[in-house]
Amino acid sequence: MSNLIIVGTVAFDAIETPFGKTDKILGGSATYIGLAASKLEIPSTIVSVVGGDFPKEYLENLEKRNISTQGIEIVKEGKTFFWSGKYHNDMNSRDTLVTELNVLETFEPKVPEDSKNAEFVILGNLHPLVQMSVLQQMRQKPKLVVLDTMNFWMDVAMPELKEVLKKVDVITINDGEARQLSGEYSLTKAAKKIYEMGPKYVVIKKGEHGALLYHKEDVFFAPALPLEEVFDPTGAGDTFAGGFISHIVKSNDISFENMKRAIIYGSNLASFCVEKFGTQRMEELSSTEMIERLKEFKKLTQYEITITQ
Amino acid sequence: MSNLIIVGTVAFDAIETPFGKTDKILGGSATYIGLAASKLEIPSTIVSVVGGDFPKEYLENLEKRNISTQGIEIVKEGKTFFWSGKYHNDMNSRDTLVTELNVLETFEPKVPEDSKNAEFVILGNLHPLVQMSVLQQMRQKPKLVVLDTMNFWMDVAMPELKEVLKKVDVITINDGEARQLSGEYSLTKAAKKIYEMGPKYVVIKKGEHGALLYHKEDVFFAPALPLEEVFDPTGAGDTFAGGFISHIVKSNDISFENMKRAIIYGSNLASFCVEKFGTQRMEELSSTEMIERLKEFKKLTQYEITITQ
Repeated sequence: MSNLIIVGTVAFDAIETPFGKTDKILGGSATYIGLAASKLEIPSTIVSVVGGDFPKEYLENLEKRNISTQGIEIVKEGKTFFWSGKYHNDMNSRDTLVTELNVLETFEPKVPEDSKNAEFVILGNLHPLVQMSVLQQMRQKPKLVVLDTMNFWMDVAMPELKEVLKKVDVITINDGEARQLSGEYSLTKAAKKIYEMGPKYVVIKKGEHGALLYHKEDVFFAPALPLEEVFDPTGAGDTFAGGFISHIVKSNDISFENMKRAIIYGSNLASFCVEKFGTQRMEELSSTEMIERLKEFKKLTQYEITITQ
Repeated sequence: MSNLIIVGTVAFDAIETPFGKTDKILGGSATYIGLAASKLEIPSTIVSVVGGDFPKEYLENLEKRNISTQGIEIVKEGKTFFWSGKYHNDMNSRDTLVTELNVLETFEPKVPEDSKNAEFVILGNLHPLVQMSVLQQMRQKPKLVVLDTMNFWMDVAMPELKEVLKKVDVITINDGEARQLSGEYSLTKAAKKIYEMGPKYVVIKKGEHGALLYHKEDVFFAPALPLEEVFDPTGAGDTFAGGFISHIVKSNDISFENMKRAIIYGSNLASFCVEKFGTQRMEELSSTEMIERLKEFKKLTQYEITITQ
C-alpha cells in the first residue's frame, strides 16, 4: 500500500536526438514519475494500461523499485502506447513522428482498492477524463493533487481539462502551455488566471531555463543546472513533477516554503534524467550522486547580500 | 574625476513595441550604463561622440547625475548615431529598421586626461577598435575591465574583437552571442572556450531567462524578475552591465563572491529599465524602489535546504 498514486502513461518510446537514436525503449509519464519517486524512497502505485506486448521484465523492474504495478491493466490482445519523436539541435523543440494510442484509446483507469485512501495523487500526462476518473475513485479528498498536462489536451479536450483543474491543487505545465491555457503572454499574468481555474499553486517549467512556482502574490524561481550536454530531454518534465511531489510526500508538508524545496528536488532529478537516453540514467542514479548535485544546485543560486534601507 | 570609464554609444533611438512607439529619444549603450552607475551613486566618465544635433539639455541631464560628458566629443557638422528597431510580440527578438552610424563612422575616442588613471573600465557596445583604443590610452592596467559586445561585431570585426578580448577580465554577452563566439552550443562549454580568449569571467545574459556567471569551474545563476509586462527591452543589457560594474566599483571587491552580488544588482536595475520606454524609468528610479526590489530578488531564489549525507 502506497500513499502516492501516479496516473499516466506506461509506454514504448523511440527517440532521436543529435546524439543518436533508440529502438523502442521503456517510456511514459507514469514510468518517469514512478522512477523519480523511487529515488526519493517513496513507494507509489501506478494507474495505467499496457498491451500484451509489454515485457513482463519491465513491470518486474518497476515492482523491484517499490513502484506497484497492481493498477496497470494489461490488455492481452492490445498493443502498448507508442510514441516516437525527434529533437532539434537546440533540444528545446521536437517533432512527434509517431503517436499510436493503442490500448490508451479505450482505457478506463481502476485505482486498486487498497490505494483509494492515498493522500497524494499526481495526475500525469493523460486524457483529462482519465485524470478525473481517478480522482472520483478516491475514497477521500487527497491532501494534495498535482496535475501535469500538455498542449495536446488543451487542443482536443480543453473543457474536460478545465473540469479536472477545479479539483487540483498544483498544476505543472511548460511556459507555452501556460500561455495557451490562460491566453496571457506574461507568465505572471498567466499564473493569476490559472489560479481562478482551480490550482492555487502554478509551476511553470521552462526546460533549460528553469522553473517558476507561483502562489498568491509569491513567486519562487529555480534554475536548471547548466549541463555540458543534454542527451535526451524525454521524461525530464515528468521526472521534475515526480521529484516535486515525492519530496512533499516524504516531508508531509504542503506549505509554500516546502514546495520551494520540492522544486529544487524536482530540478535535481530532472538534471540527471537528460544525461542519457530514456530512463537509463534514472535507473542507475545513486543517492550519493543526488546529494552531490543538490549541493551544486545550492551553490548555483545562493548568495549573501546585505540590504540596508 | 571618476574612477569608472564608460565607452559606448550616446545615441538617438526610435523604438516600436507591441505597446506603442517612440519618436527619436535618448539612447545608446553608454547612456544606459551611465544611468545605472548613477543609480548606485558611482560617478562615471563617458567616452563617446555625438553630432551637432544632439540636444545640450541631454548632456546637462547626464552631468547632473554625476556622469561626466567631458569625454563625449561633439562633431558640430555631424549627426548623432541613430538606431531604430521594432520588437516582436515575444519581446525577445527584434528587427533593426534603421542604423545610421553618422559620427560613429570616423570616431576616434579620447579619454580625458584626468580619467586615464581610472581603475575600472567598461567597454560598452561599440567597434572593438574603439574599445581597444580606450584601453591603450589608460595610464595603468585597470583593476577590472568589463566588455559588452554584440553579434554585429562578431560578424564584421571578429579578429579585432578577439584582440581586445585578450585584455578583458569580464565579458557580458547574450546566449546566442556566446554560441557564435565560441562555436559551442552548450553554454557551459562556450564559457570554457571563451576563458581561453582572455576573459576569466563570462557573464551570459539570457534576457527574461536571467543571467549566468562562469568562472573556472564555478557557475552562478540569477533569474530575471518575473514581470507582469515588459514594455521595452532596449537598454536592459547595458543597464545590467552598468549595474554589475558599478556594484564592483562601489565595493572595490573583484572576488567571485562579490561578482554574484554584482549580477544581482545588475539584474535589479535591468528589471526597472524594461518597465517604460527608453531611459524614462531609469531616470526617475528611486533608491527606495531599488531596495524593495532587491528584497523581491532575494525571495525569488533563496531557500533553506538541509542536505544530509
